[in-house]
Amino acid sequence: MAIPTRLTDLLGIEHPILLAPMGSASGGALAAAVTAAGGFGFIGSGYADSAKIRAEMAAAGNARIGVGLVTWALADRPEALDAALEHAPPAVMLSFGDPTPYAGRVKQAGSLLFCQVQTLEMAKQAADAGADVIIAQGRDAGGHAASVRGTFGLVPAVVDAVAPIPVVAAGAVADGRGLAAALMLGAEGVLMGTRFAASAESDWHDALKQGAVAAAADDTLQTRVFDVVRGVAWPTHFPGRAVRNDFSARWHGREDELAARRAEVNAGYDATAAGDLSTRVLWAGEGVDLVSDVPSARDIVARTVAEAERAMAGRRPG
Amino acid sequence: MAIPTRLTDLLGIEHPILLAPMGSASGGALAAAVTAAGGFGFIGSGYADSAKIRAEMAAAGNARIGVGLVTWALADRPEALDAALEHAPPAVMLSFGDPTPYAGRVKQAGSLLFCQVQTLEMAKQAADAGADVIIAQGRDAGGHAASVRGTFGLVPAVVDAVAPIPVVAAGAVADGRGLAAALMLGAEGVLMGTRFAASAESDWHDALKQGAVAAAADDTLQTRVFDVVRGVAWPTHFPGRAVRNDFSARWHGREDELAARRAEVNAGYDATAAGDLSTRVLWAGEGVDLVSDVPSARDIVARTVAEAERAMAGRRPG
Ligand SMILES: Cc1cc2nc3c(=O)[nH]c(=O)nc-3n(C[C@H](O)[C@H](O)[C@H](O)COP(=O)(O)O)c2cc1C
Ligand SMILES: Cc1cc2nc3c(=O)[nH]c(=O)nc-3n(C[C@H](O)[C@H](O)[C@H](O)COP(=O)(O)O)c2cc1C
Repeated sequence: MAIPTRLTDLLGIEHPILLAPMGSASGGALAAAVTAAGGFGFIGSGYADSAKIRAEMAAAGNARIGVGLVTWALADRPEALDAALEHAPPAVMLSFGDPTPYAGRVKQAGSLLFCQVQTLEMAKQAADAGADVIIAQGRDAGGHAASVRGTFGLVPAVVDAVAPIPVVAAGAVADGRGLAAALMLGAEGVLMGTRFAASAESDWHDALKQGAVAAAADDTLQTRVFDVVRGVAWPTHFPGRAVRNDFSARWHGREDELAARRAEVNAGYDATAAGDLSTRVLWAGEGVDLVSDVPSARDIVARTVAEAERAMAGRRPG
Repeated sequence: MAIPTRLTDLLGIEHPILLAPMGSASGGALAAAVTAAGGFGFIGSGYADSAKIRAEMAAAGNARIGVGLVTWALADRPEALDAALEHAPPAVMLSFGDPTPYAGRVKQAGSLLFCQVQTLEMAKQAADAGADVIIAQGRDAGGHAASVRGTFGLVPAVVDAVAPIPVVAAGAVADGRGLAAALMLGAEGVLMGTRFAASAESDWHDALKQGAVAAAADDTLQTRVFDVVRGVAWPTHFPGRAVRNDFSARWHGREDELAARRAEVNAGYDATAAGDLSTRVLWAGEGVDLVSDVPSARDIVARTVAEAERAMAGRRPG
């Protein structure tokens, strides 16, 4: 079976399931696997890294995939947009800021413009910029997000504000119940990050995948400490949701001191093993309770669709 | 039409819609109106105020309604449980803490035990205490909540953890799309606060109702400042979601100073007019974008059910 929506029509895909462009997890292999499964994959581009974009596009072969770009990084490295558009991808996603300066070039290149927004005001800005699809990302999301809005209330409000532009829900969607719920809220599909980060084709280290399987969402928090220690220049109003660990326990709430001592603390951070989750960051959304295995991307798409169909079939008005 | 669920079976009601026990809004008249409309109303009891419970039960006449109690207030005024049980209500709701000390008496009195919880750990505690229904409240909610979990990810995680106990979703549910989404996430119904606070029968001052109609959820925040100035002893891990105003702009982040100067600042706060929303608190959940009028409770129930049916009928797997 399939769940046709305006998103599947627009992208010419079978299932309304998008892979989030996760810098650390969504390489060409994972993006291609999600597309092959009937969804649509976006590669992450790090922080507008042209070399990474070209490498991941190559890794994806001829798969129909999209490219995700973070606007504040793109402002520093505008040539990454050229790299992203070289292969005329079906879609380009701009996240975490005003898409206006880049919208025209994306659309002229023939790509659909997807904008990931975090508030109702940002959704209106993206609509004004000519977005073809707007992704409403709640603070429930894994990785970076704003703190202002949660997925449940943001999605229907964005749907109402930007109609008839199709809206996609992001943040804590990790199974078919989440997909069905997103559709009820008026979304035309979902963008899933954490669930796909713990998949066979994800670029994540095995320790991170197993960490996601073991993690409880009660233990996640939005924090800036992992950006500060790694020296990543995220705007302060976009903290990242991660699993609490010794490092966040030591530094969360003391970001200024951490910044002042960054060189020293960073040396210690980098010296830990890649799988040392007591120090290293494990980004995770609040759907992580529902992540209990590390399947293939194909299995994730198939079971999400089947579960959503079951959820919708199980609730026929009486 | 009706939407039968295990919650409607358990309570013997038509629609899986509960009125939240809001101290300031959910008096006997509103609770009775929600029950009369086919849902189920809970009166708020202030902070375990026996006189208020008796007065609101009287105002509700013989309507089948429940009573909401805040556990930390009940610890100080345990006699309020006697007042709540005097009329053998069909259900008693315990919120914001460990229900274990009170669970036995509620059940012995023949009332169903509803527990409103804010994390997965608290849900397990409520299940162990013998809860008949567990309300999973996300931080998206209006009024007090924890900050740990959002509605979208909390609901399915609680459903899985406490099965087969029926779960109800709370936090940013304000229309039929929210009801349908909650059902897809595995909930058996919804608890709505903000939406009913802006209804004809609500005890809220008209200025608050109009304030909710005008408010944007982008402008809400979780804060303790309104509790500190009013001298209400909420545990610090339960801030309240309210609309930002001049008062929160001045004091949010400076709670210690506010506490130190409370007598003086409180005098100024209390001297403002009841409808002065630049100073006074307007509690609101993130569903407040969807609140655009002040209808009767009956209209809210009817349109929520109709919208939910439309949402579910509109998404038949193809
Ligand atoms: C590990 C990780 C890395 C992410 N990196 C990016 C990124 O580089 N660019 C971006 O737009 N979003 C990024 N996100 C956010 C996703 O686009 C998406 O909003 C989020 O994963 C959805 O929430 P979920 O993780 O609960 O599914 C990242 C998320 C995760 C979990
Ligand atoms: C004005 C207001 C007062 C509230 N007072 C209480 C209360 O006294 N006891 C309680 O258990 N919950 C209280 N709540 C929380 C509700 O039980 C419920 O979780 C919340 O309203 C759901 O979110 P929503 O407002 O987005 O619908 C209150 C909520 C509001 C908006």
